[in-house]
Amino acid sequence: MVVAGIDPGITHLGLGVVAVEGKGALKARLLHGEVVKTSPQEPAKERVGRIHARVLEVLHRFRPEAVAVEEQFFYRQNELAYKVGWALGAVLVAAFEAGVPVYAYGPMQVKQALETCLFNFTLNLTQSFLEKVRI
Amino acid sequence: MVVAGIDPGITHLGLGVVAVEGKGALKARLLHGEVVKTSPQEPAKERVGRIHARVLEVLHRFRPEAVAVEEQFFYRQNELAYKVGWALGAVLVAAFEAGVPVYAYGPMQVKQALETCLFNFTLNLTQSFLEKVRI
Repeated sequence: MVVAGIDPGITHLGLGVVAVEGKGALKARLLHGEVVKTSPQEPAKERVGRIHARVLEVLHRFRPEAVAVEEQFFYRQNELAYKVGWALGAVLVAAFEAGVPVYAYGPMQVKQALETCLFNFTLNLTQSFLEKVRI
Repeated sequence: MVVAGIDPGITHLGLGVVAVEGKGALKARLLHGEVVKTSPQEPAKERVGRIHARVLEVLHRFRPEAVAVEEQFFYRQNELAYKVGWALGAVLVAAFEAGVPVYAYGPMQVKQALETCLFNFTLNLTQSFLEKVRI
């Protein structure tokens, strides 16, 4: 099962793709990893447009079965929440166009998993869990 | 000059297109007006994907010279700011794809103008002002 993991941000957006293998003892193999960077000097539509184009390209290339995004509801500033929202908007448009379902993970779930392996959090993608967090 | 005005929201997104005519005493003529509605019952990617598709369709149909969006930085809740951000992300992707510049207006500017005419706020689109608020 191929899964894309996204840590959404407008200045830095983390974009990884893993292949999850095995049934009992699952293993994740990293197929692709990059950080999409945009600058506050660019017009907003270029920043968001570029994020959308890049995510769509990766979804078309690796055809993941799901997109897992880190979702954080408590930001220090509204403005930050708003701008992370722009980036997630771009990701959601790309996922819609590519026909890939999107699942949200709380940052604690992601961080705990990160302690073991950079992309192991995708291992939690069991169907029952997916249903719960589907956004 | 044709201008699209957008009041971004994830549940209700206001989408209008006006033709601004005249030089001294400007007049705005409404070419198109609609509210794009989505439901919290829909998956997020469908909501945002549908907003993107609809905005892109209207931009292609009316080919406005600019998109004016109401921008609000102070939301009561982070979550609301975040979700309005999704909608604006979809609008920004559409504007990027259609090659239309996006300009942000504070809600007070919009509301004051609304007292005179529903879409008159677009009359303020002078070049110097546009430069200042370009996002």
